[in-house]
Amino acid sequence: MQSLYIIKIGGNVIDNSESLHKFLEDFTALKGYKILVHGGGKVATQLSETLGIEAKLVDGRRITDIETLRVVTMVYGGLINKNIVAQLQRYGSNAIGLTGADGNLIKAKKRPIKTIDYGFVGDLDDNSVNANGISSLLEAGFTPVFSALTHDGDGQLLNTNADTIASALAVAMSGLYSTTLIYCFEKKGVLQDIDDEDSLIRDINPERYDELKAAGIIHSGMLPKLDNAFSAIDFGVQAVIIGHANDLNKLNDEASFGTRLSK
Amino acid sequence: MQSLYIIKIGGNVIDNSESLHKFLEDFTALKGYKILVHGGGKVATQLSETLGIEAKLVDGRRITDIETLRVVTMVYGGLINKNIVAQLQRYGSNAIGLTGADGNLIKAKKRPIKTIDYGFVGDLDDNSVNANGISSLLEAGFTPVFSALTHDGDGQLLNTNADTIASALAVAMSGLYSTTLIYCFEKKGVLQDIDDEDSLIRDINPERYDELKAAGIIHSGMLPKLDNAFSAIDFGVQAVIIGHANDLNKLNDEASFGTRLSK
Repeated sequence: MQSLYIIKIGGNVIDNSESLHKFLEDFTALKGYKILVHGGGKVATQLSETLGIEAKLVDGRRITDIETLRVVTMVYGGLINKNIVAQLQRYGSNAIGLTGADGNLIKAKKRPIKTIDYGFVGDLDDNSVNANGISSLLEAGFTPVFSALTHDGDGQLLNTNADTIASALAVAMSGLYSTTLIYCFEKKGVLQDIDDEDSLIRDINPERYDELKAAGIIHSGMLPKLDNAFSAIDFGVQAVIIGHANDLNKLNDEASFGTRLSK
Repeated sequence: MQSLYIIKIGGNVIDNSESLHKFLEDFTALKGYKILVHGGGKVATQLSETLGIEAKLVDGRRITDIETLRVVTMVYGGLINKNIVAQLQRYGSNAIGLTGADGNLIKAKKRPIKTIDYGFVGDLDDNSVNANGISSLLEAGFTPVFSALTHDGDGQLLNTNADTIASALAVAMSGLYSTTLIYCFEKKGVLQDIDDEDSLIRDINPERYDELKAAGIIHSGMLPKLDNAFSAIDFGVQAVIIGHANDLNKLNDEASFGTRLSK
């Protein structure tokens, strides 16, 4: 199988023009098939505020009402996505900007109302990703760039977490490609000591993961991230790497980029 | 050669939800390869007003300053494009929403400043359209949906007239497909008597066009539209049809839809 990188960047990269440009240049230099998934950033929040749309939170969870969905469709699907595509084209990457509605590539289900109505939020399942459709774009020479939007197949766009999209893409594509999922964030990776960027843990397998949890080194916010990563690996993803967006250039010699999670 | 329809709709269709849905259903029912090009609509103007961005006109011509470019990138490239795509998917058309930046499919040049600085407006030339890239999407089973945005290949998105994009696409694609360009608007086609919708002229060739101009039946606003249409035909487009967006369902028996311009 040919190899495929699926790389997710979040708002912290998007909001910093210098970081974003360096990242996009490094992304372009990566050899082989690749897919970029990007989250939002401050622009959506700023636009909502300017338009007088109040952020709706229920039990601390953000609600996507119809006005907020319009804003994220404009900002994620339009402004951010198309500017990333234009920059990638400048650097020489044949980017094509997508939502899950495009080519019916990612179909979600509106989150059912239990105690909270999350509004226009889409959840993914095992059949959400159209791997053959995405593969046909890769084989035709395009580099897909996904914003965090999906659709329900019945005409409704939905807001879907970018981490979740990246993970679902990786699992689905691992049937066709030897797939590595990369989460870029603002740390070098999983740190032995959170205050010491030099204490990077290079490799974690499930046994080591259990040890690190038992020792209290991995806890709270990192737990769901790593649980999801190991779950993706169980479902066929070759490795999940967590590293700093500014260091992506080190990926071509894999030994020196981030923390690598694998079996 | 296989046949290809390139169909352009404007703001009048987009702003009317009922018209738009009927049009998208009819578009889906059209057999064979097809491309949709859409313009803007009132939403961009409304959003600009809400954001306090003044419409800048110089000598009656609209200027695309950086703030306006952001708005049209959000509205054309995001909100309108992705909602059209989601609706087309609902009806069963495998739509993929694009700007000219995506896949480097339409590259423009920022309009040079002579007497007026139009801002971030892109002009097209003979080499603007990447016909092979678009063909690879069609052959992979996608139906391209273009918003009126292009890029300069150097990272800059540009605002480009949707009629111009449709015409440039038709000329470029006519080397690979037997291409028919269709402009949908709010009239049944070219009318013998502008006040009588039943006075539709079915067919116009260059000789008849000269007669109609000489007789004063085609004048003012229609002249540049038809001049451009006959120019596209000179460059290889098989026919240009001008008709009412609500009548697209009549296109499958071509005799009854709009005014057909051809050699």
